[in-house]
Formats: sequence, C-alpha cells, structure tokens
Amino acid sequence: MKITKDQIDSLNAGRMKRHSVQYSYCKEQCEAAGIDMEWVTDQVAAFEVAIPSWALGAGGTRFGRFQYGGEPGNLYQKIEDIGVLHALSGSAGEVSLHIPWDIPEDTNRILRHADQCGIGFNAMNSNTFQDQPGQSLSYKYGSLCHVDAGVRRLAVQHNKEVIDYGVQLGSKSLTVWLADGSNFPGQLNFRRALQNTLQSLREIYDHLPADWSMFIEYKPYEPNFYSMVIPDWGTSHFLANRLGEQAYSLVDLGHHLPNTNIEQIVATLMMTGKLGGFHFNDSKYGDDDLTVGSIKPYQLFLIFNELVYGFNHNESNNPVPAWMIDASHNVKDPLEDLLQSLHAIETAYAKALLVDQVALEDAQSKNDVVAAERVLHEAFQQDVRPILAEARKRRGAAMAPVEAFRALDVRNQLIRERGSQQTATGL
Amino acid sequence: MKITKDQIDSLNAGRMKRHSVQYSYCKEQCEAAGIDMEWVTDQVAAFEVAIPSWALGAGGTRFGRFQYGGEPGNLYQKIEDIGVLHALSGSAGEVSLHIPWDIPEDTNRILRHADQCGIGFNAMNSNTFQDQPGQSLSYKYGSLCHVDAGVRRLAVQHNKEVIDYGVQLGSKSLTVWLADGSNFPGQLNFRRALQNTLQSLREIYDHLPADWSMFIEYKPYEPNFYSMVIPDWGTSHFLANRLGEQAYSLVDLGHHLPNTNIEQIVATLMMTGKLGGFHFNDSKYGDDDLTVGSIKPYQLFLIFNELVYGFNHNESNNPVPAWMIDASHNVKDPLEDLLQSLHAIETAYAKALLVDQVALEDAQSKNDVVAAERVLHEAFQQDVRPILAEARKRRGAAMAPVEAFRALDVRNQLIRERGSQQTATGL
Amino acid sequence: MKITKDQIDSLNAGRMKRHSVQYSYCKEQCEAAGIDMEWVTDQVAAFEVAIPSWALGAGGTRFGRFQYGGEPGNLYQKIEDIGVLHALSGSAGEVSLHIPWDIPEDTNRILRHADQCGIGFNAMNSNTFQDQPGQSLSYKYGSLCHVDAGVRRLAVQHNKEVIDYGVQLGSKSLTVWLADGSNFPGQLNFRRALQNTLQSLREIYDHLPADWSMFIEYKPYEPNFYSMVIPDWGTSHFLANRLGEQAYSLVDLGHHLPNTNIEQIVATLMMTGKLGGFHFNDSKYGDDDLTVGSIKPYQLFLIFNELVYGFNHNESNNPVPAWMIDASHNVKDPLEDLLQSLHAIETAYAKALLVDQVALEDAQSKNDVVAAERVLHEAFQQDVRPILAEARKRRGAAMAPVEAFRALDVRNQLIRERGSQQTATGL
Amino acid sequence: MKITKDQIDSLNAGRMKRHSVQYSYCKEQCEAAGIDMEWVTDQVAAFEVAIPSWALGAGGTRFGRFQYGGEPGNLYQKIEDIGVLHALSGSAGEVSLHIPWDIPEDTNRILRHADQCGIGFNAMNSNTFQDQPGQSLSYKYGSLCHVDAGVRRLAVQHNKEVIDYGVQLGSKSLTVWLADGSNFPGQLNFRRALQNTLQSLREIYDHLPADWSMFIEYKPYEPNFYSMVIPDWGTSHFLANRLGEQAYSLVDLGHHLPNTNIEQIVATLMMTGKLGGFHFNDSKYGDDDLTVGSIKPYQLFLIFNELVYGFNHNESNNPVPAWMIDASHNVKDPLEDLLQSLHAIETAYAKALLVDQVALEDAQSKNDVVAAERVLHEAFQQDVRPILAEARKRRGAAMAPVEAFRALDVRNQLIRERGSQQTATGL
Repeated sequence: MKITKDQIDSLNAGRMKRHSVQYSYCKEQCEAAGIDMEWVTDQVAAFEVAIPSWALGAGGTRFGRFQYGGEPGNLYQKIEDIGVLHALSGSAGEVSLHIPWDIPEDTNRILRHADQCGIGFNAMNSNTFQDQPGQSLSYKYGSLCHVDAGVRRLAVQHNKEVIDYGVQLGSKSLTVWLADGSNFPGQLNFRRALQNTLQSLREIYDHLPADWSMFIEYKPYEPNFYSMVIPDWGTSHFLANRLGEQAYSLVDLGHHLPNTNIEQIVATLMMTGKLGGFHFNDSKYGDDDLTVGSIKPYQLFLIFNELVYGFNHNESNNPVPAWMIDASHNVKDPLEDLLQSLHAIETAYAKALLVDQVALEDAQSKNDVVAAERVLHEAFQQDVRPILAEARKRRGAAMAPVEAFRALDVRNQLIRERGSQQTATGL
Repeated sequence: MKITKDQIDSLNAGRMKRHSVQYSYCKEQCEAAGIDMEWVTDQVAAFEVAIPSWALGAGGTRFGRFQYGGEPGNLYQKIEDIGVLHALSGSAGEVSLHIPWDIPEDTNRILRHADQCGIGFNAMNSNTFQDQPGQSLSYKYGSLCHVDAGVRRLAVQHNKEVIDYGVQLGSKSLTVWLADGSNFPGQLNFRRALQNTLQSLREIYDHLPADWSMFIEYKPYEPNFYSMVIPDWGTSHFLANRLGEQAYSLVDLGHHLPNTNIEQIVATLMMTGKLGGFHFNDSKYGDDDLTVGSIKPYQLFLIFNELVYGFNHNESNNPVPAWMIDASHNVKDPLEDLLQSLHAIETAYAKALLVDQVALEDAQSKNDVVAAERVLHEAFQQDVRPILAEARKRRGAAMAPVEAFRALDVRNQLIRERGSQQTATGL
Repeated sequence: MKITKDQIDSLNAGRMKRHSVQYSYCKEQCEAAGIDMEWVTDQVAAFEVAIPSWALGAGGTRFGRFQYGGEPGNLYQKIEDIGVLHALSGSAGEVSLHIPWDIPEDTNRILRHADQCGIGFNAMNSNTFQDQPGQSLSYKYGSLCHVDAGVRRLAVQHNKEVIDYGVQLGSKSLTVWLADGSNFPGQLNFRRALQNTLQSLREIYDHLPADWSMFIEYKPYEPNFYSMVIPDWGTSHFLANRLGEQAYSLVDLGHHLPNTNIEQIVATLMMTGKLGGFHFNDSKYGDDDLTVGSIKPYQLFLIFNELVYGFNHNESNNPVPAWMIDASHNVKDPLEDLLQSLHAIETAYAKALLVDQVALEDAQSKNDVVAAERVLHEAFQQDVRPILAEARKRRGAAMAPVEAFRALDVRNQLIRERGSQQTATGL
Repeated sequence: MKITKDQIDSLNAGRMKRHSVQYSYCKEQCEAAGIDMEWVTDQVAAFEVAIPSWALGAGGTRFGRFQYGGEPGNLYQKIEDIGVLHALSGSAGEVSLHIPWDIPEDTNRILRHADQCGIGFNAMNSNTFQDQPGQSLSYKYGSLCHVDAGVRRLAVQHNKEVIDYGVQLGSKSLTVWLADGSNFPGQLNFRRALQNTLQSLREIYDHLPADWSMFIEYKPYEPNFYSMVIPDWGTSHFLANRLGEQAYSLVDLGHHLPNTNIEQIVATLMMTGKLGGFHFNDSKYGDDDLTVGSIKPYQLFLIFNELVYGFNHNESNNPVPAWMIDASHNVKDPLEDLLQSLHAIETAYAKALLVDQVALEDAQSKNDVVAAERVLHEAFQQDVRPILAEARKRRGAAMAPVEAFRALDVRNQLIRERGSQQTATGL
C-alpha cells in the first residue's frame, strides 16, 4: 500500500489551527531563552533514521512469538512498509538490509521499487550467527573467531558477498555484529578467538570499496552467556584501530552491562573519531529491544546531548554516524512501534538542540554543578511536540504519525492485502 | 536404548583400584575432622533430582538453535533418555512433565514404559506462555492475569487438566510458572493483574487433590521486559500465603536480579515453611540456563548449606523441596550437560554435609567471622569426588557418568536409532 | 537567618508577567485535553515532603568529605535551614529527626523554635549502625539481630527512647533502618538473625503509642556487603505483617538491586495497605543518594503514577505515606540540592496528576499497548513548570526557589553567620 | 613485634606428620594425572603479593568505622605488621606505599627498618581524592581532569613527588587511581575531562625514571556516582597507549560493573602487553573490598588461569604484573583478613597451575565444550591445601598462618604494645 500526499495533507489540515498556537508559543518561549527555534526545527526536519529490514514483523523471544497480521512476506513488501513509515514520519527514508534474510535477488527491480517508495539503502548487515539450510560448515561454535579456518573462510566470504550486494544497491557501509563467544569457561581461548576475529575482519576490510565504512558492533552477552568475543566498546575500538581508517565502532543502546554510562562512551568514541554507527532501542534489563525512549528517555536525551556536542566539536573528523532503529516488537504493531521510536529519537534530538551550550560551558568552568545540571533540565523540561509536528509538516509528512496510521487504517489494509498468516523474516 | 547393569559394572571395575585408595584417604581425612563420612556418602546416594521433559534436546536462544543429533522425538524416547541418565548417575529417577509439549495421551502405556525405564513422575508443569495451534483465545497479553475473564478461564482450565494428567501418573504437585507481565509502562495495571492472578490461582488451587502441592515460580524479567506479575520471592510468598497450606514458593536459580543473595531467600522461605520447589541451573547475566555449577559453584554450596541447615532445623515443617534441573543446552550434548549438572549438585550437597555445624554455630555465637568463614572453607576445599563415586557405586550407577556415557558411545547409538533431524519439543 | 514574605513577594513580582502567559497557555492546553488544571495546581500546592535533620550539611563517601561553608552546627540551626527551604518552596514544612545526631535536649525550646520557623515534626529515626562514645556494648556485629541479647536490649531501648522523644515533639511515627547484616558467608545465621530482629521489633512495637506507626526500611547491601537482615520489600512486608496494623514498609528509592521495577513494588505494597513511608533520592549504581530526579526522572513519574492511582483506589486503607528526601550532597550546596529535589518530586507528582486515568484504563482493557503508553507519554511530555510556579505562589513561596536562593545570597549569609568550618552531624 | 624462626618451626613441627601423608597423597594424585607437582609447589612458593600500607587498620564505610585494637600508628609499625604477615605466610615481602597517608620522612631510617623486617618496596600510590590540611586548592571537583589548570598542576606535582619518594626507596612503579568524575549530568565535559587527564598524565609520565612503570587504574563508579573519568579498561588502555611503553593498565577486581567477565579483560590486556598491575579483593555488589576469594573463588581461579596462560604465551612481552591486595577490613582482624586473602590467591594460583593445558587446547580445537570445561573442573576440584602448606614450609613460613597467628596471640601482643585507641591512616 501507499500513502498519498493528499491523505497526509488532509489529516494535517485538521491540526493546523491548534498547532499554530502551540508552535508560536513554543517559539516565543525558546526565543526568550535565546534559542533560534527555526534552526532547531530545520535540524530536526533534516534528521533521518534507517529502518532495518528485519524489524517489520512481530518480534519474539525464545519462549515464543505471537504473530501480527499483515506482516510483509518479502523484501518488496518490507520496502513498502518503510515507505509507509517514511510517508507518515518523513524521517525513515532508508532501509538497512540484512543478508541472508533479505537477499536482493533482482537488484535492478529492488532499486526501482525502492525508488518508487522513496527509500534508499543504508548500512548492510551480515549474519553469521545462524546456519542457513544446506550450509557446508556450521556457525554453532563461532564464525570469524572459529578454531577452524574453514569456518572462518566461509564467514569472511559471506561478509564479502554482503559488501558486493551493497555496492550494487548504493550502500556505503557494512555492519558486523558477531554472536561469537562461549557459554562456558574453557570453551574458548579468549586470545586466540580475538586474534582470529581480527584476522578475519582484516580480510573483510580489504574487500571494502574505498568510500565504504565498516562498523564493528559490541555486546556483552546473548546469545552466548559466558563470554562474547567483542564484549565492549574497548574491544571494538581496539579492533577498529588495528583495521584502519575505514573501521569504526557501533553503539547499540541495549548492548551494555547494567548501569553503564553510555553517553560517556559516545563522547569518548567521538573524541577519537571512531563512532561510526548507532542502533537505537531501549531496555530495562538486558538487550530487551524495546521501543526507543520507552524506559529511559532522559538517558537518551543525555546521549543526544553528547552527539550534538560532538557534531559541533569535531576535531577528530568523526563522520555522521549511521543511525538505525534496532528493536523488537513483541506486543505492539511493528509499524506503530517504529513510529513511536522515531518520535522518541526526534524528541531527544530536539531537546539536545535546545541545550544552551554557552551557559553549560560557563557553569562547568566554575564547577557550578547546580547551574550546569539546570541547563540540561531547562532543555529537557521543554515540551517539544510542536517542534516535531512542524518539522514533519515541513518535510511533507503527517504531523501526528501514529494518529495518521490509525486514521488511515493502515494495518487492516495490510491484512487485507497480505493476510494474517504471513511471517516476516527476522528474529 | 538401555544401559545394562553389566555395562556399568564392567566400567566401574576398571576404576575400583584407584577409587579405593581415594575413598579411604578421603574418609581418613574427614574422620580426622570428626565427620561421619559413611553417613555423608549415604545421604548423597539417596539424593535424586528430577529431569524436565523439555531438557533432552538442544536448547536455543531467540537468535537461533543448532540441532543436536539423536534428539528424542516423543515422550517415550524422552523417558528412555532419562532412563539412560538414571542408569549412569543413579540420581535422575524422575521426570517432570510439561504440558502440552509432552501430553501423556495413553497414560497406561506411558506408566508401563516409565516403569520399565525405572522412572517416576515428579511435578507437573503447565504452559500458558505460548498459544497452541487452534487455541480459541491468545496468551499474547497474559494468561492468569489477563484483563479478559475468558482468557483467564482458558488458562485456569488448562492448569486443571494438567493436574488431572498428573493424578493419573502419580505426580503430587503442580508447578506454575507465568510469563505474564508487560513490556511497557502503562500496558498493565499492576494491582489488577496481581489480583486477577491470585483469583485464577485460587481456582486452580481448589482443584488440587488433598495430597498435592502447588509451586509458584517467580522471575524478574523475560519474556516480558518491563514487569512480570510475579517478579520476586516476596510476591510468590504473598500468593502462597493467601492460597493456603498446599501452596509454596519455587526458587529457580536463574530468576533473580543481578547480585541477589539467593541463599538468604532460601533460608527465609524455609523458615516460613514455604519452600516447595527448586530449579537448578547457573548463570552469569540473566536466566542463562547454563549447566549447574558452571559459573558460581561456591554460591551453589552456600545454598546447599542453607538447605542442609533447614532440613535439620525444621520447626516450620517445610517439606523436602521438589528438585529439578532447568537448564538449556545450546552448545553441549544435552545428556552430558545433565550429567554434569547432577555432578555439580551432588558436589555442593556433599560439601554442605561436610560443614561442621557445631563449630559454625560456636563461631557465630562469638562473632568470630574468620572462624565461621573458615568452617565453610574447610568443607568447600575438600575434594569430594571420591564420595560421589562411592555413592554412585552404592546405587548401582556409573562411578564416572560422563566417561561412561562416552565409553558406551550413547550419542551415536541414539543418532543411529533416531536420526539427526528429529527435534525435541521444548524451547 | 530568615526569609521574609516581602523578599519573596518582591522576587515573585518580577516573574508574574511571563508566568501569567505561561500558566494560561498550560491551562488551555490541559483543559483542551479534559484536565481540571486548577485541581492539579491545588494538589501540588498541598504536597509537602519532610527534610531529614542530617541532610543540611555536606555529604561524603568513605573516600572523604569536602566541607561546605555555613553548615548548621546544631539542631536549632538545622531547623532554621529547613525554615529557609520552606519559605522558598512552600513544601518543606517538616523535619525528620535523627537520634542521636540531633537529640532535642530542651524539648520546649525546640518546639518553640520550630514553631517560629514554621516547621513541624515528621517521622523519628533511630540509629543503631554506629557506636556512640561511651556506649557499653557495640553494634559492630549488628543491633536488633545481634547474637547477644544484651546488645539487642540496648538497641531496643534506644528505639524506645526515640519514640519517647517523638511523643514530646508531636511526631507520629518511627522509622527503623537497620544496617544489620554480614560481610562474609558464615558470619550470620540468616534465620536466627531474622527471628531476633522480629522479636526485637516486637518489643519496640509494643512501646508505640496507639496513634503511631512504625516504618520498616529495607536495603539489599551497604554497609554490609554479603547480606542484610532486611534486604528487600518481601522481608520488610513479612515483618510488618507479623508485627501488626501499626507496622508498615518503607521504600527508599536507592535501596534496590540493579534494574528493579520499583513502581511495581509501590503498587503491590499499596494494594496490601502496607506502604507507610517513602525516601526520595536518585541513583545510577547503588545507594548513590543523588538529587531526586537527576538520573531517572521517568521512573520517578511512573512511581508517582502508582501513588496517585493508589490514592484513588484505596480499598486497603493505605495511609498517606510519610514523604522524606534522603539524599547526600557531595558536590552541591545542600540547600540548593534539596530545592532541586523538591522541584523534581513536584514535577513527577504534577505529571502523574495529568495522566488521563479513564483513557489509560480503556487502553489497558483492550490491550492497546501503544495507546496505554501514549497516555503516560502525553502527561510526561507536558511542561509543568508553570503549574509548579503557580502552586508555589499560592502557598506564598518563591515561584523560582533556586533563583531566589541565589538572589537572596543565602549561602553567603549563612557563612557570615556561622563560619566555614562548622560541620553538620550526619554521614 | 617480631615472629622468630623458632616460633614458626615449632608450630610447623606439630603439623609435619599429618602433612606428609597429605602431601604425598596429593603428589601421587597429581602425578597420576601427569602433573609435575614439585614444579607447582615451587611456583607457589615463589609467588609474592604486596601489602598496601593503608590495609593494616580497621576499614570503614561512609556509615562508620569500628576500631580494632593494636592498629599501627605510623609507617614503622605498619612495616612491622607486614613483617609479621611475611613471617607467617612467606608471601608478603613488599609494601605498597600510599602518599600522603604514609610519607617516608626519614628515608634511610625507613629503609633500615624495612630491611630488618624483611620488607621491600612495591608500587607507590598517589592520592588526589582527598584534600590535605592547608592544601592551597581543592580536589573537590577533580584533580588531573580539573577545569582549572592550577589544580591540575598541583595534582601533577604531587604525583611527581610520589615518584621521587619511590626512587629513594627502590620502588619501580607508580599507581595512579583517580576518583575524578562527576555526580550529575552536565557537571563535567566528558571529552575535556579526558583530554585534561591525558595531558596531566603525560607530564607525570615524563617524570618517570627509565626503569619505572606507570599503572593506570580504572573504576566505573564511587566516589563519583554519575561518571568516572577512567571508568573501564578501554579508557585505561587508550590512555596507556597514548602515553607510551612505560604505561600500563591496572585491574582491581572490585572495579567493574555487575556481571563483567574480568578474566577476559585480563586476557585481552595481556595479549596487548598492557597488563601492569593487579589489585586483589572480592565483592558481591560493588567495590565491596572483601577478603580475596570470599565470594567468587571460581572466578578467581579463572582469572589465574588466564594469567598462567599469559605467562606462558608472552609474545607481547607483558611484564609480570605488580600484585597487591586491596581490601578493607570492617569486621575482621586486618592481619587475619590479609592472611586469608593470601591463602585464597595462592589457592587459585596453584589450581591454575594444575590445569592440563595440552588437554584444554585439544578440547578447544575440537569444540568439545564438555571436555574443555572438565579440564578446568579437574584442577578446581583438587584440594591444594597440602601444596600451599608445603610451599610455605619451603620458604620458612608457617604452614597454617591463621592458626599460627592465633597460637602466637599476635593481636593481643599488638594491643599490649600499642593500645586500643590508635587509628591507622587509610580509609
């Protein structure tokens, strides 16, 4: 299905009167505080986040999965879904492909289809944590780290193919997430596993086109429960440094031990020019993959505060990170969940843009802790919904995306088109 | 397949010479410390742990599952596998059935088969965390806690049926583990959910035969990632108290927040006479379901120290808990994994029996912290492998079960019998 | 020092023009959403939180303490400080006394002084975690749980005296926080320690006047690092139930293991009518005792959402909890820190009052998770600063308390009055 | 006080008969498993761990401190205490000095005294987390990271002086632990703080003699509760790499977030040649500073397994780390506590030496997880107490140090010499 400009416009029209009042008030308030509100709105309007191809169906846990109706059954339908998200939100203009869940068999047709949906291609994702039917060797005991050179070769080869697919589609980066690790003490030689991984990554790295980047994701546990070969940012950073200038670390918000100060990691990575990618989600316990901002919205704001600071203090030439939502949708409509996530990201970003950097630096220079904290609070307490609505309007999207999704009865249309039994590939 | 007494005897014969030396030395050492070693050996020999019917195939995570060859394809084969475990270890004489993964359709035939394998029936387990094909209403948003009385009725009815199956098989208890909970703030009304659960449990409780017990399991998170209706021992204890004398709490070692002092919970539950069941496993991060004793063997010993103390100071008439292993086998042969778990449990139990309770109490009464701790250390540092071997020998089992499993080439026989593609029901 | 009505009025006058615009806008917005804003403002205006007598000086850690100038040197000065906080915020009208740090030696004089400062007496706090000079027996190895009946008697007697002091001052409750526990396995017999504690509490309970309440605090660790005798709400609830109707649990936000869902504990305790007291603070790692709302403001909102729900659904006759701030001020001016905490509490309360309970219940009844969550988001995203300012104005306090504190140069006046070297009693 | 060779010999004599039997048996068992037991005993006998000068008195928490009698009142007495530990254990031959708690004012006299006590000088420790009386500028808001260049200079200067003291005493390394960090979001600019720290460390590094090393300690929280400037191994490693070849990371076992896999960090640091120092202790919750091995003895064994592997696979030329015990003694006699810690360290080391590295590598190469784990279990289950006793005997120490400490009535002698009121400097 497709959402037309007319549908959007008509929904927005009904909101304009109230919105104008709210936006004016918000602008007034911000400008009284010395903030250039139009600039903020424009920044928010320019922000886009990629949607992974595996996030459009119902998610699950090891205890089971409850189907959602109207799930996309192939890559074309997935791109269509992202097209819907983009039409509604104006901020989801790219897809991040996962191979082999979503192999673009007919590249030209995919490119045409994506173009019609207004969707481009963000980072490519490889998968060496599952065996595919008929696979000659198994990833059960690891892939890039494996003790057997044959398995490592297979995994390296797979990653190279993922790059090749990406080249055809116009992608510019490869994300490597490894499930490699061990469940029991003794299972793995930590050092050999890390050295094997470095060596394997080097072979993949050497296959990268000159204008590509490689993002190395880290995760402390799951699906391995004793050790992971790349458990933390330190290990990812070590690998990225050894590989070279095109290699970066990737931060997934759910991939940290309890109580980790993630915003500090973001700051340190940007300082060294090595923050390449970002996976958004939220969690209370582990890699819960909940809707962005649903548990710790203040932490998300603090992370964006570091990102905004980093954009403006970029001595290390850190590239703009590749943004992606990486969540699971166990009890919500996946498309509504993604719209909520986009809203949460934009909220945090808008509030971070409202931070009075001059006042903050002034307070820090005097160790006036209360004043410094209050600068952040002033921004966080601000109601930025009018800014988000305005930004969406400016990019031709729905001012209230979830309401629009419901008003247009999208889910039922998808069910009518696709039925209730189809299952999207993914977790 | 079946393992014969002759096979066991022949394997044990080759070990006797060295074992005699080791056991004599161990006995000498213990008796010099005033411990009645024969009594310890007999206690260990009398200890049995139930095997759940879902633990005999390869386990998995949400990221995938790697098949193991020779997995049992039905309940008969599962009971056969437990028969193998029991023949090898002498301590796995009961199965804990999970409904509907393992419905005993022809009860008489199952009973006969189990009897031939030397296996009895421990606690019954219900499942309201997955929908079964054709199920009229869904557990997607909970079961006993559900806002819809129809769903609650369905779940209550299911639990009653599980009791009925159990009655036919000679089981005496029902374990209720609920995945009920919420993934997002606002999803659930905490209080109504808990009250609905209490009311549903009451209906199930009223269906219990007079000589049955109900065990209420708790878990802080997974598969729900914001709240669980029964998150901790306090909630389980509250429910058990409200229900009555046949209701108890069940402790699963993996179901606690980071750093929880589990041995203290065990002590408190026994003090109030409400420790009904026990699920063994080990973990480093969450409900990792690793082999028992593989990560924190000292904690396991401390837990057994409380259990042993509780057996001997039972003013509250706490029943002997129903013991069960509840682990997942992602990278090990499931049967070897279970044999390792049994070994770890017996090790902890034997060491706890070695604790000099008089010396411990004396040190505690003087607040001599160093002396009290050293009493525990003395027991923990003792090498109890000879005691375990002797206990196994006395019950006619293999003195070295894993070695015997390999010497008898059990896995390959199972693969020959069953093939490599069969998948056991379970997670 | 004292702050006069004129000073407050004059500061407020300069804010009125802008405030009127903001408050009108906020009211308009709320009323468009069907909320009776005046009622919300009145509720916020009526909310008060007690200040503990030990929270008015610089806090410290085991690594050291950095003095703040102008710390109060005695109970009179402490009450004066709370008077300042109350004049500025309008919501800090009571002190919670700690014995023996702040013994009210001349009760009549203290009562008169407090009356002049506009301050009443909230819950009394006993201390059996430190030895006092000349104390006959030591609390080194516990107090109410101690193996030695003599130490238990001493601790019971101390608690009775604290009640007696409280009776003279018009307090109506006793808070018992125990540091009792153990640092090493074996040190303590868990069960005997808990039974001793129950018996000791019973003796204290029997000394309570009929119109008094006893609050039993729990904490998982620190200052003991292996076990605490009352580690969790379950144990506190067990004790409160055994003691009787005047005994309640007390929740301190910092006293939980990582990732605990505190709002659910609050809901469960209110459901059983046993939530008696509340200590506010915030934390990222352990009992960090940071400014309220400084780390997890959304969690605080969710907790208040349960509290507000509980006030309106009080079948269990749960009393209004005794509210208190319990934080430490290591790098901020203690008075500014407390003003920030009051602001954060009122913010969370106001937002919780904005929650559309009808819409929430409706969404929950349909398992419309997205809609339910959005009801909470709508309230949380609202900027409630105008409501707080209006509430403060209505109770005659400063609309912007921290700004007023600075404008009136309070700290420097205190330093002039008291010097820089005085140290307040407390941690 | 001093312990004589005669006292030791006489105590050992009474143990020899039983010991001979135990050692012979242990040797027999090990050699049957192909282990060169004499080599293990010699390795253990050669292992020494430094004692910090601040660990000889009672420890405390922010809630208080309970004095122990006979605490050393000055550096001479501290060195005497370490002399006692060394005489008893044979493995505590060095002191690690903390400046300014233990300034060696008369270097020659200290050197003579230490020499008489048989004690040498290990790593020097600086302190910039507390202000000293009369200090011109304060470390309240940090030291090497401070926004004010004057404070940074002061802290750098202090570290240089610590090096100078060390040079006079024959020390060869400086340990830098920074409490620098922030309690609240906004307080610190993460990047500037880290850059300032790097710059400050560089100035200190430039003052290092050519044969010295610098150890950079990391810690995730406490005494700062929002961020620490060097929170994890990744940051420490980054700094060490930037500084140069004489800079290393230091691992303190208590300085990790919940559930961290510390043995993996140890392996990675050794692989890169950057593991310089090691602080031993144990913990259940945070930086609990409990006796080594008291909570997680299996983890300690796994850590030593990596260390032993690293010693034998040293392509990176990692130096032998500087070993030190860093614990706090809140409820135990500090000297007994340290003897227990030494015992736990030697136990873990001995067991790690028993690991059959060939069998382990073989199992790993086949992904035989059960076999690999069992290699570790075989070593861990072995009772190594006879090895430790033999090693102590060989180095002329007491075979049973804690028993000897009590038999010789050391504490009471110290109380008679020093009284009960003296307080050792330290936390």
